[in-house]
Amino acid sequence: MKRIGVGLLGLGTVGGGVYKALQSQEDVILKRTENLFEVRSILVKEKQKERSVNGVQSLITTDFGRVLEAGVQVVVEAIGGTEPARTYVERALKAGCHVVTANKELMAKHGVQLERLARSRKVQILYEASVGGGIPVLGTMGHFLKTNRLHRISGILNGTTNYILTRMSREGASFEKVLAEAQQKGYAEADPAADVDGFDAVYKLAILCRLAFETDVPVRQIFREGIRDITPEELELVRKLGYAVKLLATGEQYGEKGPVSLRVGPTLLPLSHPLASVDGVYNAVHLEGDVVGDVTLVGRGAGEKPTASAVVEDLCNLFRLPPPRLPLSEDSLLLPAGEAGGSRFICMRLGNREVPDPEQLCQRLEGIGLEVVDAVSSRDGVAFILRRWDPSYTSMVMTELGLEKSRIISRPIRGIIFDQERQSEMERVV
Amino acid sequence: MKRIGVGLLGLGTVGGGVYKALQSQEDVILKRTENLFEVRSILVKEKQKERSVNGVQSLITTDFGRVLEAGVQVVVEAIGGTEPARTYVERALKAGCHVVTANKELMAKHGVQLERLARSRKVQILYEASVGGGIPVLGTMGHFLKTNRLHRISGILNGTTNYILTRMSREGASFEKVLAEAQQKGYAEADPAADVDGFDAVYKLAILCRLAFETDVPVRQIFREGIRDITPEELELVRKLGYAVKLLATGEQYGEKGPVSLRVGPTLLPLSHPLASVDGVYNAVHLEGDVVGDVTLVGRGAGEKPTASAVVEDLCNLFRLPPPRLPLSEDSLLLPAGEAGGSRFICMRLGNREVPDPEQLCQRLEGIGLEVVDAVSSRDGVAFILRRWDPSYTSMVMTELGLEKSRIISRPIRGIIFDQERQSEMERVV
Repeated sequence: MKRIGVGLLGLGTVGGGVYKALQSQEDVILKRTENLFEVRSILVKEKQKERSVNGVQSLITTDFGRVLEAGVQVVVEAIGGTEPARTYVERALKAGCHVVTANKELMAKHGVQLERLARSRKVQILYEASVGGGIPVLGTMGHFLKTNRLHRISGILNGTTNYILTRMSREGASFEKVLAEAQQKGYAEADPAADVDGFDAVYKLAILCRLAFETDVPVRQIFREGIRDITPEELELVRKLGYAVKLLATGEQYGEKGPVSLRVGPTLLPLSHPLASVDGVYNAVHLEGDVVGDVTLVGRGAGEKPTASAVVEDLCNLFRLPPPRLPLSEDSLLLPAGEAGGSRFICMRLGNREVPDPEQLCQRLEGIGLEVVDAVSSRDGVAFILRRWDPSYTSMVMTELGLEKSRIISRPIRGIIFDQERQSEMERVV
Repeated sequence: MKRIGVGLLGLGTVGGGVYKALQSQEDVILKRTENLFEVRSILVKEKQKERSVNGVQSLITTDFGRVLEAGVQVVVEAIGGTEPARTYVERALKAGCHVVTANKELMAKHGVQLERLARSRKVQILYEASVGGGIPVLGTMGHFLKTNRLHRISGILNGTTNYILTRMSREGASFEKVLAEAQQKGYAEADPAADVDGFDAVYKLAILCRLAFETDVPVRQIFREGIRDITPEELELVRKLGYAVKLLATGEQYGEKGPVSLRVGPTLLPLSHPLASVDGVYNAVHLEGDVVGDVTLVGRGAGEKPTASAVVEDLCNLFRLPPPRLPLSEDSLLLPAGEAGGSRFICMRLGNREVPDPEQLCQRLEGIGLEVVDAVSSRDGVAFILRRWDPSYTSMVMTELGLEKSRIISRPIRGIIFDQERQSEMERVV
């Protein structure tokens, strides 16, 4: 048995969860890894706050320096955000401590520097919990798909938005109503921007793509679109066409060391796509590799226990698994997020205007050269799917139908679209 | 760079796939693991057969002894079945070679002895490809869920049966018709028993449960039911009730070191269950642990490339990851597969008899003390869901409705059943 001293930074949802999991799983960890993790110091902001964990008063400090002096070999960073987390993590690594963190913003923005720093001090920084909560996606990529060239990653990486979209779709409720209820119940933050505007998903996508494509894309350069403009009417039309809308994060690389394209935004998935049925607060990642085909991992993307599970697994793996490779070789060209090409869903909100017959609409659109795959209408809107999309089509549609741009919404479509192709795809993989 | 000699047993789908993948991924493997795997000898049955891989003639032998003499550190067993595979694997381990195998039958029946033999010779035997093809489920359990107590595993572990059920459900075609077509196209064996009668899934379930529950259950003691009696009519009724039927493999453990229950058989899943939408030849495993909640892994369960991916990952991990724990501590009590308790789907084939009105049927069944959740009818059958099930109910229903037993089919239901519960479950996990 080896005793390992742990310093905990933060005792909120994540930090408290890690503390509890180290206690409840102590015997399992000892039996399976022969390690005993002892929390020796806990950094908090306010010393006297009421907490969900008991018996920690003697470990608590408000001075980061005291944590490093407490005889710790690992620091678990559970503060979140970039500062002071970044400074603490750097100091911990420089002091020769391993670091485990759940901090996606920190690892998205400063991951490369922190991993280099860790390497130079012969310690490790692991961050499985930063993407997909309890889903072991980083470990899977690093250890079980490492002989594959991954060329595409698609993920539902934010539980709050997936929960909101699921409830809007099931209940026909508006975005504002579902968000307000989610905030009231504590499922969404008072300021929901990080979730509903896609920032959280962007951080996670940056981390995934760094590991998959070995290239570091600055988060501010990643195309990002949130879910605020989605209406229950749109979701109804989407469902009628046989699709689901998800806030999808996608990263693609075109050839080894080739250019990459990263995008976060509402995306249509055919109902047969492995991510289309991932509902509620679940997260999921769909990985495509050149030998394995595709692998999908689904699980709880947030919450005290799933996040704690990933942190505690990382803690053990610091002392069991080989250190991860340095994540990047060289910078790749970042392509603009695929606006042109590919299939597209177009939805038109007609308000008080008469809803046109879908078949006549198809004919008119085909008359101006568009290739319409399918079209449906509802009480106050109409939607259709174009086989190929070009941004210039928006103005063509506006002119033909006499609509303002604000009434036209367009979303990319991922996955297999046509029934015939779906069928042959099914047979091809047997 | 380290050169590692590999001996390949078998050059069929799996063996040929491994040979090709070692060539196509050579640079990726070298870059990421600093190992170069060289196939130095290949055991085949017939020396002169035509093969899908080129340039191997000089490596080919029909004498196993020659493989061990070729300077190999690892033997990849890709023959399948128990003999001669078992003898070869034992000889390889005794000669101090690591072994990687995709052989589920061998590992289900003799895995414990082979792992003990490997341990005693200070080598490893890895077998990721034996369960779920390209899905890294064994690695995930061993390395990324090792601090969790797993209490339930549910899996779609056989691609052939999932393909047959998917096509039956989509096309309304009979089992016999879809099977015949699948055989014609080479997706199903001429003797389909291993797949459609559930043996293949039983082997994989035995392996999964040994790792998850640390107990060894003899495969012949595992409850097994195939898919031959499923009709398109039943699938139609199931769909009307909001469920899907899968050939599900389930293992549960009741408390740490507690009794276990293992079962392979057609099972209803509510459409919201993560496994319900896993269609075609895809496999999936749903793992439930005490900290992580649940994690689902989905991917291609068979085929040359996915299987080769898992074998090649194992090859690398022999020299990277700590050896797996010895899989079992002690024998657990095996409970009879849950016949009583839980919800149940009952389907009655009425042939030429008049189809009763579902509502009247509910009333009659409730009159004899059964708790009916929902009922539906089709042109020639009727089906209902009972909240709780007891085997004695079959005769009660037969008596009440004047039916023979052969016309009554009953299937267990897994997962969340009622909309209200589904809703609260969704909220609970946020």
